[in-house]
Amino acid sequence: MSSVRFITTASLCGASMGIGLFFGTKYERLKKGNKDHLTHLLHLTDTKALFVPSVFASSSIPATTSTSMPATFPQSQPVNRVSEIMKFGFPSLDQVRSFDNFVLSYDRRNRNAQWVFEHIKPEHVMKNENIKRGKSEFLEDNIIHTFFRATKNDFKNSGYDRGHLAAAANHRHTQKAMDQTFTLSNVSPQVGEGFNRDAWNDLEKYVRAKARQSRNVYCCTGPLYLPRRENDGKVYVKYEVIGKNNVAVPTHFFKVLLIENNQGQFELMPFVMPNQPLPKDVKLKKYLVPLESIERAAGFLLFDKIPRNNIKIISG
Amino acid sequence: MSSVRFITTASLCGASMGIGLFFGTKYERLKKGNKDHLTHLLHLTDTKALFVPSVFASSSIPATTSTSMPATFPQSQPVNRVSEIMKFGFPSLDQVRSFDNFVLSYDRRNRNAQWVFEHIKPEHVMKNENIKRGKSEFLEDNIIHTFFRATKNDFKNSGYDRGHLAAAANHRHTQKAMDQTFTLSNVSPQVGEGFNRDAWNDLEKYVRAKARQSRNVYCCTGPLYLPRRENDGKVYVKYEVIGKNNVAVPTHFFKVLLIENNQGQFELMPFVMPNQPLPKDVKLKKYLVPLESIERAAGFLLFDKIPRNNIKIISG
Repeated sequence: MSSVRFITTASLCGASMGIGLFFGTKYERLKKGNKDHLTHLLHLTDTKALFVPSVFASSSIPATTSTSMPATFPQSQPVNRVSEIMKFGFPSLDQVRSFDNFVLSYDRRNRNAQWVFEHIKPEHVMKNENIKRGKSEFLEDNIIHTFFRATKNDFKNSGYDRGHLAAAANHRHTQKAMDQTFTLSNVSPQVGEGFNRDAWNDLEKYVRAKARQSRNVYCCTGPLYLPRRENDGKVYVKYEVIGKNNVAVPTHFFKVLLIENNQGQFELMPFVMPNQPLPKDVKLKKYLVPLESIERAAGFLLFDKIPRNNIKIISG
Repeated sequence: MSSVRFITTASLCGASMGIGLFFGTKYERLKKGNKDHLTHLLHLTDTKALFVPSVFASSSIPATTSTSMPATFPQSQPVNRVSEIMKFGFPSLDQVRSFDNFVLSYDRRNRNAQWVFEHIKPEHVMKNENIKRGKSEFLEDNIIHTFFRATKNDFKNSGYDRGHLAAAANHRHTQKAMDQTFTLSNVSPQVGEGFNRDAWNDLEKYVRAKARQSRNVYCCTGPLYLPRRENDGKVYVKYEVIGKNNVAVPTHFFKVLLIENNQGQFELMPFVMPNQPLPKDVKLKKYLVPLESIERAAGFLLFDKIPRNNIKIISG
């Protein structure tokens, strides 16, 4: 995994272990006296959902009670108002992760990717006897800060499959490329029977069939958290979260294909499937939707650099 | 508003009107034949929540059915695998907006800021007879793409206040700075009575009192969507969305103060309040929480550039 690259606008270095240390102490106080109030405050009925602080190893971090600034404190003059306002750190929710053969943006609030992009050529999906799925194993993504990282334990006994977003079998040209698809930042909780092992798997196979017969397939996959109207007449977004890190269980998944055929013509196919057991007899084309409905729900534009009037959009 | 600056990693230009045009046509088809299926597919009980496509003005965009590439299509060779994979657009959920006196990151999925940063000096909060709140009015943020923009209509008859995140009265040094706090990207749906007009307002007044007597106050404010355990034993995130753009109603709000006193010593105060009517007799300090609980729930680190062992953290 040494060539996995990491891009982010936020600095995650330095102070994080100090935070862990601090909250180690704070957590002890919390447990002793303040838990009931906090539980009420955070509007929870169970402390498991309270993002219980993890206690970091503290031996290498000297704790002091001094409130004066250290010599290493940034002293340079800010050059404009933005850098004055943002002097002590620029937070980011997005975290872009670039692997050998796919790129994803990780949503640190929901502990799922928000999108995963693949560029699939015929050589990526051809059968290769040397590349075996059985050699790969699920790995936590150590580049993601522990506060936001999904772990193998989060999935344990959840009832959900660890569902690939970039499918393993789209990366059959090297074992390393396939192995990287097992990184948990590329994985979402998916209903197993009737979804991940069935209808969603059929869609993945369709992508590979298209890739074998096309010049290029660009594939963007991601979770959705769609609202629905409830009996009180109001509209709500509601989704389960699993494990102690509250990994979100998406209500739906999208997959958008941009296919360049061997004549250089482009087709776009936007699919959405609900994360639930789906009937066996439904054709894939029934899951085609307008691209815009995915973009509005996901919060970003897709393939916006390609002029829309020069592609054939196949959507429902 | 001419000096409002705009930073984003995603290109929002060009193709977006084409998308609108396309889905204008597509929406007609959808209305005629496919609505029931889609409603089922997207797991909704009412089409109002279906992110109904808006139809853009189309006169300036020639629609063609050609699928060949235009002469203006990007032809340059990609320099590495990432740029190959991401060739047709790099989506982003975060959108950073920088105003005269505050900076925010907009969450395009929830149509709320995810954080708003202020740097408050005594001169920003001093009474100023020339600067009047009554001269300001709420404005939609035209820099945000229409797919993701909250509108005044979304708030109408919702029962929620348009609650400032950067408070208007923290920007009393110029009328323009105060006006900018009324931009809807700085606004979240807040419960009025008992919250926005009461407990939350008390917290905002406390921030100004601190700012009057300190060298610098750095203030980060934002929404939270906290999970809770339900009767089935599972943990869910659930929040209302309002208006046709599905603007999220946060379950809670946080406000973290980093205060530098006149001796150059630093104090950090992390507050969380539920977005509901709160009892009058609760002291503000009861809403102090561990910083880490905010960071884990929000999905980002706060003030991570300042070493934790050199600040006094006051939390509960």
